[in-house]
Amino acid sequence: AEQFQFTQHSHRRFNPLTNSWVLCSPHRTQRPWQGAQESANAPALPEYDPKCYLCPGNTRANGESNPSYKTTFAFPNDFPAVKADQPEYKEDENDAQGLLRVAGVRGQCHVICFSPAHNLTIAEMSDQEIIPVVKQWIKCYDDVAKVDYINHVQIFENKGSAMGCSNPHPHGQMWCTEDIPEEPSKEIKSMAEYRQKNCACLLCDYAKLETTTSGKPRVVCENDSFACVVPFWAVWPFETMVIAKQHVTNVSQLNEAQQKDLANILRRTACRYDNIFQCSFPYSMGVHQAPVDGKDHNDDTHLHIHFYPPLLRSATVKKFLVGFELMGEPQRDLTPEQAADRLRSCSEVHYKKQQK
Amino acid sequence: AEQFQFTQHSHRRFNPLTNSWVLCSPHRTQRPWQGAQESANAPALPEYDPKCYLCPGNTRANGESNPSYKTTFAFPNDFPAVKADQPEYKEDENDAQGLLRVAGVRGQCHVICFSPAHNLTIAEMSDQEIIPVVKQWIKCYDDVAKVDYINHVQIFENKGSAMGCSNPHPHGQMWCTEDIPEEPSKEIKSMAEYRQKNCACLLCDYAKLETTTSGKPRVVCENDSFACVVPFWAVWPFETMVIAKQHVTNVSQLNEAQQKDLANILRRTACRYDNIFQCSFPYSMGVHQAPVDGKDHNDDTHLHIHFYPPLLRSATVKKFLVGFELMGEPQRDLTPEQAADRLRSCSEVHYKKQQK
Ligand SMILES: O=P(O)(O)O[C@H]1O[C@H](CO)[C@@H](O)[C@H](O)[C@H]1O
Ligand SMILES: O=P(O)(O)O[C@H]1O[C@H](CO)[C@@H](O)[C@H](O)[C@H]1O
Repeated sequence: AEQFQFTQHSHRRFNPLTNSWVLCSPHRTQRPWQGAQESANAPALPEYDPKCYLCPGNTRANGESNPSYKTTFAFPNDFPAVKADQPEYKEDENDAQGLLRVAGVRGQCHVICFSPAHNLTIAEMSDQEIIPVVKQWIKCYDDVAKVDYINHVQIFENKGSAMGCSNPHPHGQMWCTEDIPEEPSKEIKSMAEYRQKNCACLLCDYAKLETTTSGKPRVVCENDSFACVVPFWAVWPFETMVIAKQHVTNVSQLNEAQQKDLANILRRTACRYDNIFQCSFPYSMGVHQAPVDGKDHNDDTHLHIHFYPPLLRSATVKKFLVGFELMGEPQRDLTPEQAADRLRSCSEVHYKKQQK
Repeated sequence: AEQFQFTQHSHRRFNPLTNSWVLCSPHRTQRPWQGAQESANAPALPEYDPKCYLCPGNTRANGESNPSYKTTFAFPNDFPAVKADQPEYKEDENDAQGLLRVAGVRGQCHVICFSPAHNLTIAEMSDQEIIPVVKQWIKCYDDVAKVDYINHVQIFENKGSAMGCSNPHPHGQMWCTEDIPEEPSKEIKSMAEYRQKNCACLLCDYAKLETTTSGKPRVVCENDSFACVVPFWAVWPFETMVIAKQHVTNVSQLNEAQQKDLANILRRTACRYDNIFQCSFPYSMGVHQAPVDGKDHNDDTHLHIHFYPPLLRSATVKKFLVGFELMGEPQRDLTPEQAADRLRSCSEVHYKKQQK
């Protein structure tokens, strides 16, 4: 009888971090594509753009001038989604059924420029140039950990216009909130339950499983402190997760060697992405780590970084997570193992530097 | 002291259907937009396109010819995400930690053309023309309910290239699966818990609450059988939910009058959407109803339809649910009440028909 094959037959895989399923339909990559295309690579950007509000020395929306920064530069977002000062919200006593529940949310939003160069993404920066970004994350994490009303820090980067980025100058953001947002909450719950059941850390176990399985079918690259894998339960076509190999719960716990290793694996991951389709590969990237709510999170968090890139077939054809994905459940068209294979076959030298 | 105002201050709202939170930052609409723009309206489409694989009489990818259909036309998807025949999957016995869980998924995928006209969307069809679509949904639901290995039917429509639609010919899809997908599963769980606690149906209560609150701040339009509301917990800028006012759990339970009313409210909702920015408004639309798993779902389901449209500011600027939204939690820029206001102010006569 015919054997079940992941590369041929539809199946669901379970995400133990978020406690949810994803549908995998690998034969679907064969269908023709007549839908929307992203515009191909934009013309090369200048190293300095006088109109960019993130370039050194330029003036921002609020009239302030950026310093002539040389590595990274962090400042409060001029259009923050959450603010420090607002009146307290009192829950509506009449909502007995709990159908109109609301909570006020205070917080802070910061922008972190990765480099003074307008045209330099993490994929093309050197390890040495990325270390200040990691150090800036640590500084920001430590700073807001001291702020009373802030309980969680979400560090992320939207790269590329396909991922809603409105300025190509390489930068990330940090949204700090009173509450712990949905996604990290789900992960914390799952990790606590796993710890309870197995007396172990879910992501310590998973990192070990992936880096010791024969052939390492989902590992993209590694160094002493981190592994980059396409998770068994990946949703986005070339989704990856960078996992700390040692049990650390936040960036502030990283020693010098681990900080260097984080910079290194971020560069190598981003560079492989750019090399898949020889384009500036769009993605959303986010750091998941311990909340700063004053509680002990050693048992229910483990530092890791998600990369969610939308491209599927080429520099211009992305995967749309729409109808079935929004109403039913996430669906992917190639197996995580196929995606990891493809990423592994990419060079860690950026394609622009390969051309002579 | 300053009062807390939904239109001024950041807050989270709770979605009791999916048991999750969404961040609302209404002051954020003030920020300038320099990011990606959708292309504006495509040139007018012909009523018949000889190259379209959905137009009557044309040949599809698999060589079959479409009949000269006059109202709707349903056929099996030529590139299905799930298939009826595949080997059974045997769970891996070695995965003691439960980190690599998999389940095989059998199923069927169908396409439903709404109209023979290549250029006619639900927004521009008449109630009379939409009734056959509703009847087709009922027929399909009843048909697959009889298929043993199918336990759930997800009816949806992706409209517009911004929502990954690859063919402008008005059509929806139906993915029928062995499993109950994530989103309906979450809703079923929440509705069962609500029923347990309140001896009532969550969506019966919610429909009543919205249609009896003074001023009906979130109601867009209604008829005898359905209400279209911007849910209190909406994520997408102009998200709406069409809720049956009577307790029905699936399309097959709708009587003739209710079927007519469903066609009517779908048209009016889609027409208002097109009129917001005077463009063919993209969205993903999906029907949530009772699974066809042979169990009694009277107590944990209630027929409703979600519309998730991405546009935010104009026909060309959409909301990106990216970085924070993917890594933290969904975030919206205008309040549901503001969105409902805007939708209420739109005509139910399509803008193309208003122009003389
Ligand atoms: O089936 P279609 O219209 O070709 O494809 C579209 O809808 C599907 C179901 O939501 C998605 O999986 C695809 O990513 C999207 O492009
Ligand atoms: O803050 P930006 O880069 O202007 O905006 C981008 O990222 C935000 C956070 O993920 C999103 O809410 C916006 O929709 C997106 O366009």
